Amino acid sequence: MSGSAEFNSIFYPNSVAVIGASTDFNKLGYHCMASLMVSQFEGKIYPVHPSLPEIRGLQVYPSIKSVPDKVDLAIICVRSSLVPSILNECAGKGVKGVVLITAGFKEAKTEVGTQLQDQIAAMANRANIRIIGPNTFGIVNLHANLNASFTPEFSLTPKGNISLVSQSGGFCHLIAPLAMEEGVGMSKIIGLGNRCNVDFADMLDYLADDPDTKVIMIYIEGIDGARRMFDVAAEVTRKKPIVALKAGKFGAKDDAAYFHTGSLAGQHEIYIAAFEQAGIIGANSSTELLDIANALAVCPLPKGKKVAVLSSQAGPGITMSDVCEQHGLVISRLCGQTTKRIEELLPPLSMRSNPIDMGPAWYDSEIIKGVIEAVSADDNVDSLLFYTAYASANKPLLKDITTLLQSSVHQKPVVCCFPSPKGIWIEEKRQLVESGVTIYATPERAAKVLVSLVKRSQIVSSLEQP
Amino acid sequence: MSGSAEFNSIFYPNSVAVIGASTDFNKLGYHCMASLMVSQFEGKIYPVHPSLPEIRGLQVYPSIKSVPDKVDLAIICVRSSLVPSILNECAGKGVKGVVLITAGFKEAKTEVGTQLQDQIAAMANRANIRIIGPNTFGIVNLHANLNASFTPEFSLTPKGNISLVSQSGGFCHLIAPLAMEEGVGMSKIIGLGNRCNVDFADMLDYLADDPDTKVIMIYIEGIDGARRMFDVAAEVTRKKPIVALKAGKFGAKDDAAYFHTGSLAGQHEIYIAAFEQAGIIGANSSTELLDIANALAVCPLPKGKKVAVLSSQAGPGITMSDVCEQHGLVISRLCGQTTKRIEELLPPLSMRSNPIDMGPAWYDSEIIKGVIEAVSADDNVDSLLFYTAYASANKPLLKDITTLLQSSVHQKPVVCCFPSPKGIWIEEKRQLVESGVTIYATPERAAKVLVSLVKRSQIVSSLEQP
Repeated sequence: MSGSAEFNSIFYPNSVAVIGASTDFNKLGYHCMASLMVSQFEGKIYPVHPSLPEIRGLQVYPSIKSVPDKVDLAIICVRSSLVPSILNECAGKGVKGVVLITAGFKEAKTEVGTQLQDQIAAMANRANIRIIGPNTFGIVNLHANLNASFTPEFSLTPKGNISLVSQSGGFCHLIAPLAMEEGVGMSKIIGLGNRCNVDFADMLDYLADDPDTKVIMIYIEGIDGARRMFDVAAEVTRKKPIVALKAGKFGAKDDAAYFHTGSLAGQHEIYIAAFEQAGIIGANSSTELLDIANALAVCPLPKGKKVAVLSSQAGPGITMSDVCEQHGLVISRLCGQTTKRIEELLPPLSMRSNPIDMGPAWYDSEIIKGVIEAVSADDNVDSLLFYTAYASANKPLLKDITTLLQSSVHQKPVVCCFPSPKGIWIEEKRQLVESGVTIYATPERAAKVLVSLVKRSQIVSSLEQP
Repeated sequence: MSGSAEFNSIFYPNSVAVIGASTDFNKLGYHCMASLMVSQFEGKIYPVHPSLPEIRGLQVYPSIKSVPDKVDLAIICVRSSLVPSILNECAGKGVKGVVLITAGFKEAKTEVGTQLQDQIAAMANRANIRIIGPNTFGIVNLHANLNASFTPEFSLTPKGNISLVSQSGGFCHLIAPLAMEEGVGMSKIIGLGNRCNVDFADMLDYLADDPDTKVIMIYIEGIDGARRMFDVAAEVTRKKPIVALKAGKFGAKDDAAYFHTGSLAGQHEIYIAAFEQAGIIGANSSTELLDIANALAVCPLPKGKKVAVLSSQAGPGITMSDVCEQHGLVISRLCGQTTKRIEELLPPLSMRSNPIDMGPAWYDSEIIKGVIEAVSADDNVDSLLFYTAYASANKPLLKDITTLLQSSVHQKPVVCCFPSPKGIWIEEKRQLVESGVTIYATPERAAKVLVSLVKRSQIVSSLEQP
């Protein structure tokens, strides 16, 4: 059985059993049932509980054995001591995928916990069962309307092509609300937990061939056997971008990471170097991780590092140029023809070479359109950064430039920042985003994203070389 | 006349004239009138235009001379060549404050522009007129319902105690929408423009004594005569915190800064060092600038740099600790008594020393309350960082801990991150913010803010030493 088929029973199941399903709000089995129901999962749902007759209108089965059909995925949220026997029953039933939410294994740092984890890992390996967990919040696959987690609200995340593989469930609970807030579409959200027989490498390998995943985000604190992950990652980044956030830079929390998922955090710097070598793009914060992934999912890649910075207000234009230069991009010298055209368009009282301050014409859509057109067509320009803030005199601007800004026009990425008061330019921004333009709330975030697009482009080019 | 009284005619005028008021959407005088009207300014408004009889229901005067009353503030948005004669009329009328929106002065880099600016500066100095500008978007004082700018939507910014002095109007158009989005309250928003006779130093001096300003943000690209600004700033930071964002780190944009406001950007590093020496807190991005100012306006200052990091999900707790340690804060060793109490409360399977992972008890409000109580009372703890993400099982948590988290309880700052899906924990967060707790969208932002609170505390302590 290929890795892909194995994991499809977890991410695209036809039937799911919830072992430990409950009607008691204080039990995770209650929330797991709620998640499955609100996600409008279209497959079969089999709640398993020793005595309850019915949960949320569904028939309850006293054990997984008594479920009349095949079960693809079992979500387990019983107490830890019961897990081995439950797993045994799952094996008997032919279950191939398990999401094991229960905690109290290796992360407990007790002899019992460690033994229990070793025991279930051995059982799962023998029975060809893949376990996400233990000690996980679960997994979500928005493309299958599957919320196999204890948090129903994950189903509110917009559907898209970015998947997250995380060593921390808490981090998933941070990223999903950010994605909702920013309107960033996600595909799979995976909390690896203690990784008893499914690790980063397995998930990267699976997502590399997942048609619903275009960009992979990973959040990692530190793992044993990181080499295998990096070997796999080096292959995966040939196909799809991976963006990574590494936590645990300093010493004080090695213990915390240990307690959290049962592994000592490795040396931070080694990870950062290994990211580089494997073609993984490193992010410096959770915001940056999502920002970069979003752009990689939406934008074409720039052919090189020559950027044109256009702003209707010079200050933020300077800020964007700063970030670009700080990270090795080139504020490109425009072609003579472009310069000539810009000098026709803009009065001499503005900065007409790159960065271009369209300040004196900030409320004149026609001039701004002319500048965008000239700059986009310039062979010395690989990408555009564009800043324009709302002021009531330029209200029509965004609508006027929508078509021109579409990345498709010149196959060059356009990364924008359009600050506007609440309720203004909403529809205009929506249309731009739909047409492949990415928009960020600050000039620094926009420029940082472009830096990563260039980085990805360099990674891709280096692979293409013989 | 004291500096304060002089500038009060600009920021707290009883009567405002708009010279160049217009009914034509394509003229800035149209938007300036709109701004004054929507801000519900309670003083007198006198539109001035040579021929129009009425604008927005208000009587129009053919010149400022013909206005029957005293005029405190004149907003001027006529073309540049007319400005000297208009200024002359203002002097004759006894106007003391001018917001000069018109562009085409020193920033135009033409002989005419430079001469014009020198001319009006000399006129203003002779007549004791203070000019904000030229080449500015204007100023806003939310405490006086005064929007003397060409963007009416500035009046949507929440009212609070943070003032912004900016070399760039475009930057003001970035910060105000961010403040609206984040619910950060502002006081005065000032675009200095070309600074013909009002510069950073004057505004810092004025805001130092402004009862409606608790924290001052500055955005600076580079100015001539920066020494005077830093001398004044060193005095002001004894009274109030100043947070600064410096743009123009790299060379390519020196020209852009020049064009923008008529001054060459100075060397970036010199500014950064001078910030430090003047007790100014430096920010690295626009988001950070606003985040830090917000915390300084709301939180008590920590007595020292010993932080307790509490998280209901270890991953983001590690991230927060990372940021703290990276910036020299101390993840403090808890007192024996605190440790004992925490060990009673939390099961051994969690990290019970600092950072504290309350993971295994993340849905148990009583345990979390106990931990907060123990840690807050610890003399080895100067401040708290607290992270808890929403998951449906912990929905009641935020309500349960509101009272405990209030900074007032222990006079220690509490900086939080509470990620939650759209529509959840809204009211709980509002109450917390009202009671002096600051909440940020990511653990990195929360931790970065705490770093700055500690920095401000160190600045204050160093001043108190003999």
